[in-house]
Amino acid sequence: MAAKSPLAPARFPTLPALAGAEWASLASGIRYTGRADLVLGAFRPGTTVAGVLTRSATAAPPVAWCRAALPGGRARALVVNSGNANAFTGEAGLAAVRRTADAARAAVGCRAREVFVASTGVIGVPLPVDKIAAALPRLKAKLSPTGWRGAAQAIMTTDTFAKGATRAADVAGRAVTVNGIAKGSGMIAPDMATMLAFIVTDLAIPAVVLRTLLRAANRKTFNCITVDSDTSTSDTALLFATGAVRPRPAIASATDPRLKDFRAALLALMTDLAHQIVRDGEGASKFITVTVTGAESARAARVIAMSIANSPLVKTAVAGADANWGRIVMAVGKAGERIDAARLAISVGGIAITEHGWLRPDYDETPVALHMKGADIELAADVGVGRGRATVWTCDLTHGYIDINADYRS
Amino acid sequence: MAAKSPLAPARFPTLPALAGAEWASLASGIRYTGRADLVLGAFRPGTTVAGVLTRSATAAPPVAWCRAALPGGRARALVVNSGNANAFTGEAGLAAVRRTADAARAAVGCRAREVFVASTGVIGVPLPVDKIAAALPRLKAKLSPTGWRGAAQAIMTTDTFAKGATRAADVAGRAVTVNGIAKGSGMIAPDMATMLAFIVTDLAIPAVVLRTLLRAANRKTFNCITVDSDTSTSDTALLFATGAVRPRPAIASATDPRLKDFRAALLALMTDLAHQIVRDGEGASKFITVTVTGAESARAARVIAMSIANSPLVKTAVAGADANWGRIVMAVGKAGERIDAARLAISVGGIAITEHGWLRPDYDETPVALHMKGADIELAADVGVGRGRATVWTCDLTHGYIDINADYRS
Repeated sequence: MAAKSPLAPARFPTLPALAGAEWASLASGIRYTGRADLVLGAFRPGTTVAGVLTRSATAAPPVAWCRAALPGGRARALVVNSGNANAFTGEAGLAAVRRTADAARAAVGCRAREVFVASTGVIGVPLPVDKIAAALPRLKAKLSPTGWRGAAQAIMTTDTFAKGATRAADVAGRAVTVNGIAKGSGMIAPDMATMLAFIVTDLAIPAVVLRTLLRAANRKTFNCITVDSDTSTSDTALLFATGAVRPRPAIASATDPRLKDFRAALLALMTDLAHQIVRDGEGASKFITVTVTGAESARAARVIAMSIANSPLVKTAVAGADANWGRIVMAVGKAGERIDAARLAISVGGIAITEHGWLRPDYDETPVALHMKGADIELAADVGVGRGRATVWTCDLTHGYIDINADYRS
Repeated sequence: MAAKSPLAPARFPTLPALAGAEWASLASGIRYTGRADLVLGAFRPGTTVAGVLTRSATAAPPVAWCRAALPGGRARALVVNSGNANAFTGEAGLAAVRRTADAARAAVGCRAREVFVASTGVIGVPLPVDKIAAALPRLKAKLSPTGWRGAAQAIMTTDTFAKGATRAADVAGRAVTVNGIAKGSGMIAPDMATMLAFIVTDLAIPAVVLRTLLRAANRKTFNCITVDSDTSTSDTALLFATGAVRPRPAIASATDPRLKDFRAALLALMTDLAHQIVRDGEGASKFITVTVTGAESARAARVIAMSIANSPLVKTAVAGADANWGRIVMAVGKAGERIDAARLAISVGGIAITEHGWLRPDYDETPVALHMKGADIELAADVGVGRGRATVWTCDLTHGYIDINADYRS
């Protein structure tokens, strides 16, 4: 395993126990040796669920299973394994998901459609589902309200640190908790979700409202990150609401004013997890924030921002601490969106570099070069045609990425 | 400068003299020391021209100049410099192009609109046009029908070898020559053209016919290569016809049956040059051919093929000689085009790997692993929904790419 990312947080946060959610993890021997690779999450009866899933045309069987189960809106169990994505595994892959769900159903005591499944790891290798089915009763016996960190560790693949976050919110005077764990490091360019993220709150929220809240936050968080422009076959983000905290009258709409603080907490938590995934980007040495303003629409701004964030030439320039703003001009130009090159204003680290289609006459590269030597890089472009804006996050492209990916399977 | 690409051809081909075209090059000191960086091409009166240019929204002033001059259809001179792209240089950049064209006009004795200009190198730095204007009379004095190789060398930037090609064609019993030179190594994902390519034939062809021939060949050659998915601000491909060989009656249509051999020669020459650019891809150690069949349309096939060819995870797997076909599944899935995952058939090196949405039961990785150790890699996917097909070419992603691009400007 690679050394811990230099951009990792100082430590895994303390995720408080959250009424109605328990976790267990263990080493089932799916692929790795000497580390946990299988997680069971169990939720109290009445727990609601919403999810966003990859739009990949080669989405894996676990994604198909979640897509079919989500309309039910109810969740009692979550089974996640690392080391094998159970992707592009044909009929056998679907059978493996059904068998996993059935074993979890029996262990937890619920309906199969209340079991959610996610797998992450290598694509195209049969999932050793016997090991998973055999381990589920043992996982059931290990369930604990303090199992968050163990679960976050067990779902890692090329991740160099476990990812978790917690936020508190006030809903109509009641204290609400939101906890989340995530994994992801490479093959990160989420389309509807990220690699894997599991978020739980104790607030009672109907599934239909949960879905609106999750999608809104997802657009500004997991869908705004990229490590390498490659979209996974397994992207899954699930949000569970155990219902232990039940405001009266019950929450019935995503626009309920009592949800204001909760919405902010959810957005902050998902932003935190999304940033942790970028900070663990394969080979990352710098965290990059790309902000585009002045576009025709928010959509156009996002396309331009992603063009900058996915440009290998921009990412290698950042890796080399090179204030090569010409590559930002190139990436804006290739994005295919309307811009006004004569008004294109680029700034790095908050320092304005260009105006009126060229360098500012007073441009001094010294403070920009200093900013580029840091670990948190801010790139911004105003494209001069409208009011659309977007912010996305990525990391640099270094030798570490090549090291990790030129020899991942072997 | 980096060592010569291991994928380079054994030697620069001998480009025969071509009636009506002469070349000169010299070291003008724009940026590099100790090497030629400025080229003048001169064409006999009556020479016609067609071109394809980048669609980048931040296209450089020389591209704008060519775009304005191409409808005239006549060319007498071409001025190309390396070391400075004269891109995103504002009004000063446009003035520099006008000054260059005026100096070439005076040296060659033609109209300014018969002068074509291209620049390649760093973006955003003022072009030292005084050096170019001063050098043009000296270049005029050096013009030679054997100057092809010198010109190909002078337009290199991060290229590790000079790129040239020649083909012969028979047009109505007359021997016709097509010569071409090109440059390109990084920032290669041409949209309407490639980095820079200049092709000359002695056949008399009206500009309007030349345009049709160039665009048709461009779609299958320069627009089908990618090194790093980054599109240049300077992409320019120009095709000149000096008219020394004049069949009777004159060529008046791109569908003239007498052009059959010429069209094939042009396509072969442009394919050759496009492949040379990929073989000199920054850091390349392997040449990759990606073929997609069974798509809804040729356009959809190209989108899927480019999704595979631009995937950092596919490219690093090839660099590591890893037969990781699951990453091809991923790249097909993220492309956004309709496919049938249950019919997706992937092959590597001509060896069928998947069928019916999973591994073939008799799949043996041994011959695939052997193929992956070679320098010419063939990846193919049939996506099972139609008859659209496309072939694109790329190279692998290695430490060399990071080395070159994390410190290009400094």
